[in-house]
Amino acid sequence: MNGKKGSIRIDFHLPPKAVAPEVEKNADANNIIESLSPRKWIWDVWEFAKTDTTRVTFSLKVGLACLLVSLLILFRAPYEVFGTNIIWSILTVAVMFEYTVGATFNRGFNRALGSLLAGIFAIVVIQVAMSSGHIAEPYVIGISIFLVGAITSFMKLWPSLVPYEYGFRVILFTYCLIIVSGYRMGNPIRTAMNRLYSIAIGGFVAVLVNVFISPIWAGEQLHRELVNNVNSVADSLEECVKKYLSDDGSDHPEFSKTVMDDFPDEPAFRKCRATLNSAAKLDSLANSAKWEPPHGKFRQFFCPWAEYVKVGAVLRHCAYEVMALHGCLHSEIQAPYHLRCAFRSEILDATNQAAELLRSLSKDINNMKWSLQTSLLKHVHSSTERLQHSIDMHSYLLTSSHDQYDTSNKLQRKPSKTTSFNLKDLTDNLDEPETGKTETMQVESYHESMKKQQRRLHSWPSREVDDFEEEGKIVSDLVPRMRALESTAALSLATFTSLLIEFVARLDHLVEAVDKLAKMAKFKQEYTS
Amino acid sequence: MNGKKGSIRIDFHLPPKAVAPEVEKNADANNIIESLSPRKWIWDVWEFAKTDTTRVTFSLKVGLACLLVSLLILFRAPYEVFGTNIIWSILTVAVMFEYTVGATFNRGFNRALGSLLAGIFAIVVIQVAMSSGHIAEPYVIGISIFLVGAITSFMKLWPSLVPYEYGFRVILFTYCLIIVSGYRMGNPIRTAMNRLYSIAIGGFVAVLVNVFISPIWAGEQLHRELVNNVNSVADSLEECVKKYLSDDGSDHPEFSKTVMDDFPDEPAFRKCRATLNSAAKLDSLANSAKWEPPHGKFRQFFCPWAEYVKVGAVLRHCAYEVMALHGCLHSEIQAPYHLRCAFRSEILDATNQAAELLRSLSKDINNMKWSLQTSLLKHVHSSTERLQHSIDMHSYLLTSSHDQYDTSNKLQRKPSKTTSFNLKDLTDNLDEPETGKTETMQVESYHESMKKQQRRLHSWPSREVDDFEEEGKIVSDLVPRMRALESTAALSLATFTSLLIEFVARLDHLVEAVDKLAKMAKFKQEYTS
Repeated sequence: MNGKKGSIRIDFHLPPKAVAPEVEKNADANNIIESLSPRKWIWDVWEFAKTDTTRVTFSLKVGLACLLVSLLILFRAPYEVFGTNIIWSILTVAVMFEYTVGATFNRGFNRALGSLLAGIFAIVVIQVAMSSGHIAEPYVIGISIFLVGAITSFMKLWPSLVPYEYGFRVILFTYCLIIVSGYRMGNPIRTAMNRLYSIAIGGFVAVLVNVFISPIWAGEQLHRELVNNVNSVADSLEECVKKYLSDDGSDHPEFSKTVMDDFPDEPAFRKCRATLNSAAKLDSLANSAKWEPPHGKFRQFFCPWAEYVKVGAVLRHCAYEVMALHGCLHSEIQAPYHLRCAFRSEILDATNQAAELLRSLSKDINNMKWSLQTSLLKHVHSSTERLQHSIDMHSYLLTSSHDQYDTSNKLQRKPSKTTSFNLKDLTDNLDEPETGKTETMQVESYHESMKKQQRRLHSWPSREVDDFEEEGKIVSDLVPRMRALESTAALSLATFTSLLIEFVARLDHLVEAVDKLAKMAKFKQEYTS
Repeated sequence: MNGKKGSIRIDFHLPPKAVAPEVEKNADANNIIESLSPRKWIWDVWEFAKTDTTRVTFSLKVGLACLLVSLLILFRAPYEVFGTNIIWSILTVAVMFEYTVGATFNRGFNRALGSLLAGIFAIVVIQVAMSSGHIAEPYVIGISIFLVGAITSFMKLWPSLVPYEYGFRVILFTYCLIIVSGYRMGNPIRTAMNRLYSIAIGGFVAVLVNVFISPIWAGEQLHRELVNNVNSVADSLEECVKKYLSDDGSDHPEFSKTVMDDFPDEPAFRKCRATLNSAAKLDSLANSAKWEPPHGKFRQFFCPWAEYVKVGAVLRHCAYEVMALHGCLHSEIQAPYHLRCAFRSEILDATNQAAELLRSLSKDINNMKWSLQTSLLKHVHSSTERLQHSIDMHSYLLTSSHDQYDTSNKLQRKPSKTTSFNLKDLTDNLDEPETGKTETMQVESYHESMKKQQRRLHSWPSREVDDFEEEGKIVSDLVPRMRALESTAALSLATFTSLLIEFVARLDHLVEAVDKLAKMAKFKQEYTS
């Protein structure tokens, strides 16, 4: 199971080349030829091995373990003792050798306990069957096989027993093997013992090679995975906010193409999305790590691996906010560019502080040192509060109808140009004392951004019509698209900042979770702040 | 692998009963005794079996398959033909029998192809080894074992080969078994063939029982899983919005306790969270379903299972917005209750329409009928647009400083009571023509809600101090909490509605994805709307 952890998730967004090769363009054909060339292929393998050299180590270790256990048969002496049963040691190595030490121990435990239980049960049943007479014997055996099959299969579906699925499988086939070969070949106990010895030899070789030759610890992998996840959330937060503030709407891709897209220009976002799907991976690593003895940086018995999983879960709750921020960034309804610029410094400040806090957390986890970052956290809070105050003070900017009290319930929309113009004037007035730089930049690009804004606000219906014409179908037959109302656009900025503030609020919980982890895992305390 | 699909994820929020039993209260002790009582235990098992009867079917099928294959040995005739090799059929059944038909086929294919490749390679190597002389023979065999072990282990880490991990394991141990037993026991080809026959018998029995006795199809499971996921998103949207509109802040639990909580009073939210983590499950089901022949409702070859996974991915993107809405609901910064009531009918309308659309989608998928819900989608859009208009028109309500233009950049916060009062007046004015019911309700509970609001807004600092005192530590030593600014609270409503609107915008993509699925899976077209 854990052997898969070094692998990358295959994406289903790949173009279906295999399905319709005849429609492929020349460029694609060239791509295929190139991807089939042995040079490219060797290069890929080389790159794959270089990204994570533990993969190569693991492969060589499996080869070595198989070789060692084969020597038992290639030499004459052990073969003469155990006979053909020695084959079971090979099977054991092949089945038991997992990617990490913990997973190997876990599987070994499953196999050992499963074999033991099956052996005991088989011996009991054989005694019962033999004492029940020659005619009843096969019936007793048959019924017992049916029952063992049904009960182990049912038990392995039970939620809390799912991690021991392999153990139940072992019970089933070991039981069948012992009882059947006992019935047919006589002396089942001798058979069972011989087999047990060779399984033990196989297990011993597998564990020996796995633990003593450059071991791959699940605990370390879990540790590194969590650190990477924290970093990727920080990166993707920064990336998202940076894009939000720099995006003037001129090169906004079509929404429909981006909701499920891979966002090739946003590498951090993809890592953040991977973080959201990493729950199962963290769980399985923690499950393996439990079996590992103290090693490397982790010098205590019963290291609190479950806490790592909890920190991962809290981190995922932070990442949900980043996903929502990203949704805001790619939403059709967008706040005008200069309005975003008005709060630029506050948003950037809060983001940078939050990202810095995250990075310092990940660094602390990585070095297993812990200094409760009170000062850093206070910075984050104060910059976020500044953002809140700023939004609060200028919140009338966020309403397009701020200069009229329309209580007549009639839908009376003002032309967006006027609104934008008013907003612009106000923005300039407000920004003056704070950031002169922003203001001059705005004045320079004012006419340009105005034009872009106009184009943007009115571009979606025409784009929509284009879409309909492209597909050559009746308009009513297609999915009608959500209409974006430009007049509430300014409120989208409020959403963005609220989400950012909520993200910061969740950081408190992350800090708390890391604090708990630090205490339980006995990180080195540092009082720097 | 797929046997796990019927199981429920174990939650790590369980109280650590096993760790510190001595501090448990009497009530907990009673709980433990109760949970250990055989009656409770039998009841649990019964409930578990009743929730999904396919679990019982599966267990009985495994028992039956084991029994059938054991009969081969319990009777004399087959045993005399195959000898001790017949044991391999039992092993094959135990290893190959998976929960769903597709997974069994997949595993069978892996096993068959793996055995075949290993057999061919082993025979070639044996020829080479034999022709290389008596001294070199063990070296050739040893090196070949090392190479096969290393290469198969490396290949199974390769991303696109991960689903065939089991096949590589089979290659490894089959190769070792054939070559080693060939070296020691002579006549490797006869050994290999006999083993192949018994593996084939085992595989045949496993497939026969799995396919012809109440089969559990991965395709059907995938289908049902997707339908359930769509429903759970609809449920949790409704639940979340309902709670948002009914929550007057009086019984708001502490934020810190809820961010990672299980929300026992929000069953739909937990299902929605499960939906977010279902990516791996859908992937593995689709992977299994590929191997299944046409069956039941799925009458075409090459049913587009990958499209189900894609719909699931789009659905997850909708669910991210629900998570953000849920974050809003449990955020410390809350819009005043009567402000939420002001937009109550619009929010409820948009929500109900969206939920109805989702339910009709899930019903359509479930019945494999497809009528592009243009009218329903238009309803959703129009009600969402009404919400947008309403927010747009009354957006001055969302700013606490709507009656003053404060451009002096001084932080001048008005007491929240005055603000609320102003808002209240306005709200009443606005609501009058629309919903008399809401208005009277507001008037009735006005003084009460005012009091609650007050208590709420000022309750967090005292609560915070309580927390600090409780833990009996210096305040500065602890994680400082994010301060909630009540003055931007009203903007939180804008966030909530924006997220709701974004959710609706993403529904378009869901409808499109389902449309594509319907076309590719040849759903029955219906033109109702």
